[in-house]
Amino acid sequence: MENTNTLTEYLTERQKFVNDEITNLIKQMDAPLQLKDSMLYSMEAGGKRLRPILMMASCESYGGNYKSVMTIAVALEMIHTYSLIHDDLPAMDDDNFRRGKPTNHRKFDEATAILAGDGLLTHSFTVISEDNQLTSDQKVFLIQELANASGPTGMVAGQILDIEGEKVETSLEDLEEIHLLKTGQLIKFAIVSGAYIGGASTHQLESINDFAYYLGLIFQVQDDILDVSGDQELMGKPVGSDENNFKSTYPKLLGLEGAIEQKEKYVQKAKEALKSAGIKNSLLEELTDYLSNRDY
Amino acid sequence: MENTNTLTEYLTERQKFVNDEITNLIKQMDAPLQLKDSMLYSMEAGGKRLRPILMMASCESYGGNYKSVMTIAVALEMIHTYSLIHDDLPAMDDDNFRRGKPTNHRKFDEATAILAGDGLLTHSFTVISEDNQLTSDQKVFLIQELANASGPTGMVAGQILDIEGEKVETSLEDLEEIHLLKTGQLIKFAIVSGAYIGGASTHQLESINDFAYYLGLIFQVQDDILDVSGDQELMGKPVGSDENNFKSTYPKLLGLEGAIEQKEKYVQKAKEALKSAGIKNSLLEELTDYLSNRDY
Repeated sequence: MENTNTLTEYLTERQKFVNDEITNLIKQMDAPLQLKDSMLYSMEAGGKRLRPILMMASCESYGGNYKSVMTIAVALEMIHTYSLIHDDLPAMDDDNFRRGKPTNHRKFDEATAILAGDGLLTHSFTVISEDNQLTSDQKVFLIQELANASGPTGMVAGQILDIEGEKVETSLEDLEEIHLLKTGQLIKFAIVSGAYIGGASTHQLESINDFAYYLGLIFQVQDDILDVSGDQELMGKPVGSDENNFKSTYPKLLGLEGAIEQKEKYVQKAKEALKSAGIKNSLLEELTDYLSNRDY
Repeated sequence: MENTNTLTEYLTERQKFVNDEITNLIKQMDAPLQLKDSMLYSMEAGGKRLRPILMMASCESYGGNYKSVMTIAVALEMIHTYSLIHDDLPAMDDDNFRRGKPTNHRKFDEATAILAGDGLLTHSFTVISEDNQLTSDQKVFLIQELANASGPTGMVAGQILDIEGEKVETSLEDLEEIHLLKTGQLIKFAIVSGAYIGGASTHQLESINDFAYYLGLIFQVQDDILDVSGDQELMGKPVGSDENNFKSTYPKLLGLEGAIEQKEKYVQKAKEALKSAGIKNSLLEELTDYLSNRDY
């Protein structure tokens, strides 16, 4: 890491950068007030900005300037946020709180929450198509990757499999497939698009793709572990919420110890993939350890 | 019209063409079965395919081949269909039937309907970005136009203003603004993108834009008129459904006669705009009369 002393400082600085860009991009939108408020509410609800940070780090790992992926990072955060808004709806997970604050449909109403989600999803494509730092070829590559990662063969597929999985027994294989779609695809987009804009070669893009695959799984298994053993205060949601329904999780399938072991396996694989990805600094390796050990 | 004898034959032929392309594009999608079934159910629910047909007609009006906009037309129909699925949800219009068939959330369930809508919306951008008949510049133009037309400064803005409008008195001006956003933007996209791919000049694109503006209003005022005086059997939904809520309509604001007069004014303006749009055949003029007088 060049300009910061510790990973925590790096994360804080980058989060602030992303937050400013988010506020800026939504405030300049010429949308009806209630809709704008609702979109801004969820976008500003204080997430970790994990996906934008991974994208910036991946870009830097190939010698790129992190500012050149800023707009793409916000577009991705819009997609992530829309998926949370729709996921929280009464017909889906029916959650009243997220990150310690009322969910969008509780703060506003269901119709507004549905439309805010639709609005953020659609606007992410506006934002990329209007980024004048990018060439048309780059825009098309990014839009195609983002739509595939988040659409009915990506994240949306993961969502429906997750809902169906709550009704039946799930194997470790099924669980991995659901997570690779539901959360893994957007993490993969973050890593791959960062590397792409950072100047990675086609071969490097393939290797970094393998890394992204394991990073997505690490993220999810740690999420499941925290749901069993985490600190409610830090996480802003009730511990054990997955236990109250039939949702499959790593600890349920493998036990808590087994889940931790499984995570360590993924971490090893992720680091091996990083080695062959021709990367110039240790940022992504540090972020892997950070994500694997995060406590919220 | 060159190869068909009547407008009705033309419409039937083109609808079939669009329907085949829709089925084809969704069937080849590698999505979970329940999600695919749900998307296909609404996409095949027998709409008039008005927007695709307008796009093809607009393309032909500038000497283009209608087949060159096929994929873009299906992408637009995906956006239109997603908006209907979400609009019908209990938290929105709470409709049980559409085109004489159970709405998506009644046929499947609410969670599936929300995800089918999200899936169709997202996939429309995949479909355009992967259309190998188009250059990258063309893809970016179309994606930018489509995202703007359907997002939080376009159709989604219209949806939220429409919901808010149900609670307060609305003026003719407010009503026009809502409709220009809610239905007009997608109609504009159909016309403008068809002309663009058909080879219209920048000046011609501006004139055709004016035409599209009035065509959108004609479409909506006729919708409102049919809701008062239409044939329930033909429309596949109950007549008078707008009267049962506080929704503003042209007949409520102007009376039935006044609404018909207003429509005639829009038709005149639309035809004037067509004259200065440098068009090679009478297709769009015939479609204007058809839309203005349609009985379902």
